[in-house]
Amino acid sequence: MGTDHVSSDFIFGTLATDARRLGTMKAELSGIAHRHRIEPIDPLPNQPVQLWVSLGPHVPADRVTCYFTTDGSEPDGERGVAAAGSQVAVFVRQAVRWETFLWGYLEEWVAEIPSQVVGTTVRYRIEAWSSLDVGSSWASEIIGSTPGDGTVLGDSSPGDLYLHALGVEFGLTFVRRARTFAFRVDQEATPDWLYDGLIYQVFVDRYSPGGGREFAQHDDLNAFYGGTLAGVTEQIDQIAALGTSIIWLSPIFPSPSHHGYDTTDFYAVEPRLGNLKDLRALLDAAHERGIRVLLDFTANHVSDQHPAFQAACRDPHSPTSGWFTFTDYPETYISFFGVRTLPQIDTDHPEARQALIDAASFWLQQGVDGFRLDYNIGPSHAFWVDFRAAMRRIHPDAVLIGEAVETADLLRSYTGRLDGCLDFLLLQALRLFFGFHEIRASQFDSFVRRHLSAFPEGFVLPSFLDNHDMNRFLWIVGGDRRRLKLAALCQYTLPHPPILYYGTEVGLSQHQDVRHADGSGHPEESRLPMLWGKAQDQDLLVFYQHLGHLRQTTATLWRGERHAVYLDDVAGHYAYQCRNGEQIGLVVLNNGPQAGRVPLPAGQWEIAIMSDTVTLEDGAAWLPGYSGAILMALSPPD
Amino acid sequence: MGTDHVSSDFIFGTLATDARRLGTMKAELSGIAHRHRIEPIDPLPNQPVQLWVSLGPHVPADRVTCYFTTDGSEPDGERGVAAAGSQVAVFVRQAVRWETFLWGYLEEWVAEIPSQVVGTTVRYRIEAWSSLDVGSSWASEIIGSTPGDGTVLGDSSPGDLYLHALGVEFGLTFVRRARTFAFRVDQEATPDWLYDGLIYQVFVDRYSPGGGREFAQHDDLNAFYGGTLAGVTEQIDQIAALGTSIIWLSPIFPSPSHHGYDTTDFYAVEPRLGNLKDLRALLDAAHERGIRVLLDFTANHVSDQHPAFQAACRDPHSPTSGWFTFTDYPETYISFFGVRTLPQIDTDHPEARQALIDAASFWLQQGVDGFRLDYNIGPSHAFWVDFRAAMRRIHPDAVLIGEAVETADLLRSYTGRLDGCLDFLLLQALRLFFGFHEIRASQFDSFVRRHLSAFPEGFVLPSFLDNHDMNRFLWIVGGDRRRLKLAALCQYTLPHPPILYYGTEVGLSQHQDVRHADGSGHPEESRLPMLWGKAQDQDLLVFYQHLGHLRQTTATLWRGERHAVYLDDVAGHYAYQCRNGEQIGLVVLNNGPQAGRVPLPAGQWEIAIMSDTVTLEDGAAWLPGYSGAILMALSPPD
Repeated sequence: MGTDHVSSDFIFGTLATDARRLGTMKAELSGIAHRHRIEPIDPLPNQPVQLWVSLGPHVPADRVTCYFTTDGSEPDGERGVAAAGSQVAVFVRQAVRWETFLWGYLEEWVAEIPSQVVGTTVRYRIEAWSSLDVGSSWASEIIGSTPGDGTVLGDSSPGDLYLHALGVEFGLTFVRRARTFAFRVDQEATPDWLYDGLIYQVFVDRYSPGGGREFAQHDDLNAFYGGTLAGVTEQIDQIAALGTSIIWLSPIFPSPSHHGYDTTDFYAVEPRLGNLKDLRALLDAAHERGIRVLLDFTANHVSDQHPAFQAACRDPHSPTSGWFTFTDYPETYISFFGVRTLPQIDTDHPEARQALIDAASFWLQQGVDGFRLDYNIGPSHAFWVDFRAAMRRIHPDAVLIGEAVETADLLRSYTGRLDGCLDFLLLQALRLFFGFHEIRASQFDSFVRRHLSAFPEGFVLPSFLDNHDMNRFLWIVGGDRRRLKLAALCQYTLPHPPILYYGTEVGLSQHQDVRHADGSGHPEESRLPMLWGKAQDQDLLVFYQHLGHLRQTTATLWRGERHAVYLDDVAGHYAYQCRNGEQIGLVVLNNGPQAGRVPLPAGQWEIAIMSDTVTLEDGAAWLPGYSGAILMALSPPD
Repeated sequence: MGTDHVSSDFIFGTLATDARRLGTMKAELSGIAHRHRIEPIDPLPNQPVQLWVSLGPHVPADRVTCYFTTDGSEPDGERGVAAAGSQVAVFVRQAVRWETFLWGYLEEWVAEIPSQVVGTTVRYRIEAWSSLDVGSSWASEIIGSTPGDGTVLGDSSPGDLYLHALGVEFGLTFVRRARTFAFRVDQEATPDWLYDGLIYQVFVDRYSPGGGREFAQHDDLNAFYGGTLAGVTEQIDQIAALGTSIIWLSPIFPSPSHHGYDTTDFYAVEPRLGNLKDLRALLDAAHERGIRVLLDFTANHVSDQHPAFQAACRDPHSPTSGWFTFTDYPETYISFFGVRTLPQIDTDHPEARQALIDAASFWLQQGVDGFRLDYNIGPSHAFWVDFRAAMRRIHPDAVLIGEAVETADLLRSYTGRLDGCLDFLLLQALRLFFGFHEIRASQFDSFVRRHLSAFPEGFVLPSFLDNHDMNRFLWIVGGDRRRLKLAALCQYTLPHPPILYYGTEVGLSQHQDVRHADGSGHPEESRLPMLWGKAQDQDLLVFYQHLGHLRQTTATLWRGERHAVYLDDVAGHYAYQCRNGEQIGLVVLNNGPQAGRVPLPAGQWEIAIMSDTVTLEDGAAWLPGYSGAILMALSPPD
């Protein structure tokens, strides 16, 4: 898919350009790269686990050792000998692989950790060393960055050369550290309510003031607009009418910003939005209607006004100074992409980790059903292992959904650590096909087929057409409701739970781009206040209500056996069929401006929903330009 | 290894920079990429053969079919149905793999061709097609290029976008064509004489005029210097004294150039160099001394003065017009890197293929022992399959060594098609370690270990420190004989046969670089006339004679079990041991300017050869700066 749209449409950060991808890849593969490659990916009790690691061309090692513990303690060892309390698993050289971009060979090594009983957390470190004493180093990861000049701090690696170049480009100093990795042996399954769910994303400050109040009038899109939790509760029936089974609230903790991704207190509700009682009322109202509520939880960083950070800055011996990583106290510290107002928490620091787990636990105890985890690639995998175990202890079917704008390989590595991740890769394909017409039906279909098969069962990838960090879909299609409806038909007939971003259902759009290539635009444009009353597009709303209800009754169908039945790349016609047991659904889409005909597979079909006047005649569907329909098989299957 | 030296030291062409590597990789993996991946890599009778192919993200196919023949005829078929005479092997989708640089998924498909009887050549084509009729295309390859503007001609592929960018950079138009691939089922083994050999590379025009004549005096390095075949014959005892068992002659066929890589007649000897009788005399003299002779054979292209090309240009219906690929007759045709004076032969054209095979056969019948194959990546793999089979029919232990300045993966793909390839990857490591001090002992050792394990038994990778296309090793080390000797000790104790480039043994060097970063230098500098008489460095010559003889008696030892026994990256000390049966060798090298001490493994050691005054004392070798020695174990192993 076009690199240009990757970078101009939304942010893939360090992966947005070829040069960055190459730099990232070289930095990683030059050294000792574990990349959380374990097999099986989500170990069950009584399964031995293989660990894989690759050594870059210039890693001077002929021995690789894993030190591990099964009691939660920190593993350690040296040159093949475990420290007290740790055990050893010996890596064996498995394969040699040529890597053109490093112009050298990678070695793949594998070790096996014996099977463990249910509930065991295996923590491990990996040392590559030389029997001839020319070096020893640990499998490490970038733990974060400070504003800087490209310097690489911490444990060195042959990849630092490439990391330096990336750092220079971003004005960052990267910090690398030997990692403790972890996996947990359990029999956890992702709760069905997430699989079957339909998620409504509420940006609280912009959704509903409630109590008859109006939004504040502003020229400043960064200001507070006055949405509240009570306002959400007031609209709970409207939300339910969309088929919603899960509400995802943007951050509600105290914060100096309107978006809340920089909290100052993990244990309270931002007063502008309401209080704990308001939250409980919302939870009650939602739960009464069978709707779950997810909070947005940022474990990676806090506001620099957070008391823990303030104390750490005032006194290097304060109890929370170890929660943060100062590289030059107190001036320089690891922060989110080097943004000084967002100091990063060291989620491998035992007390910091516990504090975050305690905070999330508190909210589960208030009745919250799970979390959307902001920037989940910041905290370590080992952190998420402990975090999920703690959440499940409190609430056996709490769910955790990550936000990782990353490669499929990295997303997959969260299997068994989270219940799933927001599907930015699908998002891109949906926007390229329905929004930009940059890929064709066959390419979209091929992407979807491969994408779905690339992830294990049980890893949930909620779908979305847009969110608060990018242009709204309706904006990129020039306000054409036909094209939004068409894309929604596709989104709601994919196996994973759809997310509906507030306002989409009533035609909320923008006044300008979130960002232009020339640097203009406003990042808050996709967070305009919700439309209420007559401003709402009733036709669109009714469509989304019908679609949501259809989704509710067919969620399991779309997880069935799926295949394309018709493709016309020139006209933009695309039809696919899905079957689960007795239920057979057929989706016919015309992603072109001209009316057209899509032949139907044999059988008796009935239109369950259509985005425009679609007719079935002579074994075909007749579709106006930019229209589609979901059909259900009437006759029992053979 | 440093990209800078890759491009400034010698030419890796389309792989010299990150951007080119990326372009090449994307162009290939975007489409239907077979890359000659078969398993087993060199099929024996009664072994079924798996074929692997990957489909790029935008290949609109859900079916992949292999059409194959076993009688030498051209395979064909369409949408899963074989044409008359062809058979079908159905590919099955095997895996999905994320590819960050294409920002999408590759699909890996596999098919199996049943086992065949000995002597069968399997020829096959691969079609990826859509059961929904959105497309069908063939596994294709770039067959060559013309001067041009980046246009891509021939069978299109989703990778053409990237190919276009590469073409623009080089000022080339690439031509892509559906390929017929091939492998041969046989029980051929690479002859031992190649494994055990020591190769002396003669650049004929610059080696020896013979008959008491002197080299012509010139300012022009592109002119003829007067070396002859008779001159080589005269020196045969000198060549033999170096331990030589194989002479590789630079091209001897008629040609307008002094180097001869652009022939006008595949059936004659260039008169300046002598005649067929002179060649026979050389062959006889060599064979009497147990020395084999390889000719340098260019199958990829000819001189534009070659009669076949001249006829093709005069008359589009001439018998040889099909030997060449005109994209705009007669002005534009595929040529070696777009050089118009070097028109490329279409080695997939049946008559052209046969003509090349006939020509090579002629020389084998004259008593030649095999060929060094110039630019072997130009002709198709299927060509080499037929070529080798034909050569082996004439001379069962004829050998074929390719010249491919390419990745390890591409080199490996010639297994079973050629007997080996010149080892440009090792060359680079040798020069980086011994020549430029850009990698350390541990990195060199690690490269060698991985490199040797990356190729199958039976694929021979002759080693060299330099050749006629790059700066001489002695030049890059500023004329320091110590460093040349040191590198030679290492080269001659590697498992594969060493190549000695004429003149190296007597201190021949250069006056300026082959090429400077600023574009100055002269490409002929590494082809200066041989030094004779008093101009020869006797000390160096004696060293090379001793080293060559040691190699002759220890060639099998160095193919034994090998491992490093001492590494000091700071001092540049490096020692490795090799064992084959009762024989144990130990190589101690000091690649640093200071004298130093290298501890020896237990045992009784005797110095077989040393490059300077090395002493053994107190269980260690004492080595002057830039010196080394080869030691042999005295006591029988335990």
